[in-house]
Amino acid sequence: MNFLEEKILEDGKIYEGNVLKVDNFLNHQIDIDIMRQIAYEFKRRFKGKPVTKVLTIEASGIAIATMLADLYDVPVVFAKKGITVNSTDDKYMSQAYSFTHKHMNNVFVSRPYLSSGDKVLIVDDFLADGEAAKALIDIVNQAGGTVTGIGVAIEKGVQNGGKKLREAGYHLESIAIIDEMDYKTQTIKFRQ
Amino acid sequence: MNFLEEKILEDGKIYEGNVLKVDNFLNHQIDIDIMRQIAYEFKRRFKGKPVTKVLTIEASGIAIATMLADLYDVPVVFAKKGITVNSTDDKYMSQAYSFTHKHMNNVFVSRPYLSSGDKVLIVDDFLADGEAAKALIDIVNQAGGTVTGIGVAIEKGVQNGGKKLREAGYHLESIAIIDEMDYKTQTIKFRQ
Repeated sequence: MNFLEEKILEDGKIYEGNVLKVDNFLNHQIDIDIMRQIAYEFKRRFKGKPVTKVLTIEASGIAIATMLADLYDVPVVFAKKGITVNSTDDKYMSQAYSFTHKHMNNVFVSRPYLSSGDKVLIVDDFLADGEAAKALIDIVNQAGGTVTGIGVAIEKGVQNGGKKLREAGYHLESIAIIDEMDYKTQTIKFRQ
Repeated sequence: MNFLEEKILEDGKIYEGNVLKVDNFLNHQIDIDIMRQIAYEFKRRFKGKPVTKVLTIEASGIAIATMLADLYDVPVVFAKKGITVNSTDDKYMSQAYSFTHKHMNNVFVSRPYLSSGDKVLIVDDFLADGEAAKALIDIVNQAGGTVTGIGVAIEKGVQNGGKKLREAGYHLESIAIIDEMDYKTQTIKFRQ
């Protein structure tokens, strides 16, 4: 069991409807030791791969992206999201359905911040249906950049996002993959 | 002129209506060297002050908060914002008017993540009217914690937020304070 799986078992809480709450260390309160270790683990797993930008989406991906960009000494770009967007003249735009908020979000990055020379490492705290990752990949492609890899802290293996990304040939690294979780017994089965 | 003032002059853009755009290094694309230096500068300016939590508000404060929390080796808590909130049973809540989006935001932090023992360093990328800072202070007070200080990267000195916080006795440190900026000549006057 790795450090993140152990932390999830210690501090995560399972709620009805396949919901895992880890906001005491990952996405509301942030455990800085865990965050640092996540960054080092991504750096190890993507060793040798070129990275010129770390890309994430606001808000909870920003802490991981910042720690990782600090190791690579490259800029972070965080995509913004919003229901309405005034103009796309100056931005790359894609869309991602939010299962939490039950509506389509526009996801966008200002054009100057991604370009055709960029080798982009996409990171996020969670991967479930892969909507956010898909939108970020789309944006990198619009900019003519290359997706070096995708790093997520926690993948919900029951949902299809990870499977689709792997099948599409992306180098996806998830530090903890949850294959089963049971609300009644508060148990979690991680993928080996 | 310090490192941040220099960077603002180099890379910031002034728009009509007293708008300063620094999203190429501070709050959309993040220059990791600047971010690191901001964190070290805050640590220096708050030297000797006790800090058990770094508190900010999503989204653009998270990168600075993460770098700073890494130096102090304490958790980050980032307040969330939203127009609607289902229940306040489990959260501390306050309100902040968004001049950008022209509506009142609810600002909230889950109760377990701030407590009466906490000595809280509040940080953010911008301070203008001080609405966000006021809401974060209110939340720390609700939790019974102590505000150790408030660190902001860029203060817009023309607006009243900083003045009010200093008059109220808070230890406010702003790395760059803009006293005047002129859209036509693209010039900025920093407070000495």
